[in-house]
Amino acid sequence: MGFGPVIDELIDALKVLPGVGQKSAQRMTLHLLERNRKGATRLAFALEAAAEKIGHCHSCQNLSESEICAMCQDASRDVDTLCIVESPSDLIAIEQSHHFKGQYFVLKGSLSPLDGRGPNEIGIPKLLARISEVNVKEIIIATNPTIEGEATSHYIAELLASNGCLITRLAHGLSMGSELGYVDGGTLNHAFSGRKPVLTNE
Amino acid sequence: MGFGPVIDELIDALKVLPGVGQKSAQRMTLHLLERNRKGATRLAFALEAAAEKIGHCHSCQNLSESEICAMCQDASRDVDTLCIVESPSDLIAIEQSHHFKGQYFVLKGSLSPLDGRGPNEIGIPKLLARISEVNVKEIIIATNPTIEGEATSHYIAELLASNGCLITRLAHGLSMGSELGYVDGGTLNHAFSGRKPVLTNE
Repeated sequence: MGFGPVIDELIDALKVLPGVGQKSAQRMTLHLLERNRKGATRLAFALEAAAEKIGHCHSCQNLSESEICAMCQDASRDVDTLCIVESPSDLIAIEQSHHFKGQYFVLKGSLSPLDGRGPNEIGIPKLLARISEVNVKEIIIATNPTIEGEATSHYIAELLASNGCLITRLAHGLSMGSELGYVDGGTLNHAFSGRKPVLTNE
Repeated sequence: MGFGPVIDELIDALKVLPGVGQKSAQRMTLHLLERNRKGATRLAFALEAAAEKIGHCHSCQNLSESEICAMCQDASRDVDTLCIVESPSDLIAIEQSHHFKGQYFVLKGSLSPLDGRGPNEIGIPKLLARISEVNVKEIIIATNPTIEGEATSHYIAELLASNGCLITRLAHGLSMGSELGYVDGGTLNHAFSGRKPVLTNE
């Protein structure tokens, strides 16, 4: 574009961000160079530090700066329940709902043999080791309600069947605020089969 | 979020990018850390290099690595016409349309006294110096068709009235592919007052 290699490289490098194409990368580059150079430098340092220092927690496989992440070290969290999620972003979503206060185990995605993700790739051996180390009473399988997530859930449930602890799966049903007319059949079926009695005045 | 300060700082730092809020910044952070660390390092270096090396061309005020940008040095470009734009992104848009082959002058935005942008702030003195140095035959004012852009255009046109060269403004009218039913009144008025005779077979 006649701006020279340094700017062109920045535009290209910004395209590593998810959802950023040529146009957005151009806009970001011009914004940073014209209005926020300090921000650009700050972002450069933050990226470098993160790429260098962030590893995975040895206990739960979540992203972490230290060998054992802050959440696993947090003594105020319930050690009786373990929630299995597919990714750190799922963990964030659960944490932001402020309901669950137990331990986590973060898989590296869901089982998908066609994409080369078998039990070893997503960290099932580490999950089994973790479960054998600690004495949990309930294991909550919180994989996504997708085909791969369901398959992963079944696989884990069968593996742990002989473990003796309670194994649960997140409920499937209507989303809050949804309208029945727009809800898909699969979800409606789950909502029917999972229906609960309503308490009445006695 | 329990990820620790390094990740939190990266999420925060990503928010300097235009159009990136908390959710996108989280998604970008997790994507980079889980799937593309090399990309993160590459982006860090590109940002650092750009923030350090990129300045403004002494001749046209465009972003440039060198004192005089590649476009001003390009001997194949027409020196008779000078196109005045508001920002580097406007210049990119014009370059990508592959029609104009003359020189540019990039203002630092449009006149907007309420936002503290007067003639000095947007670089009018430099524009006058540039015009007095070179011998252009036509000055094309390509500021945006907004209130500020029009005001800037009028201001420049009056300043240069005594200069003797031809001063033009980009045409206003219908966008290609637009539908008359959806076109605003101002644009339609411009389209009518700027109408042209259609060539017929003679």
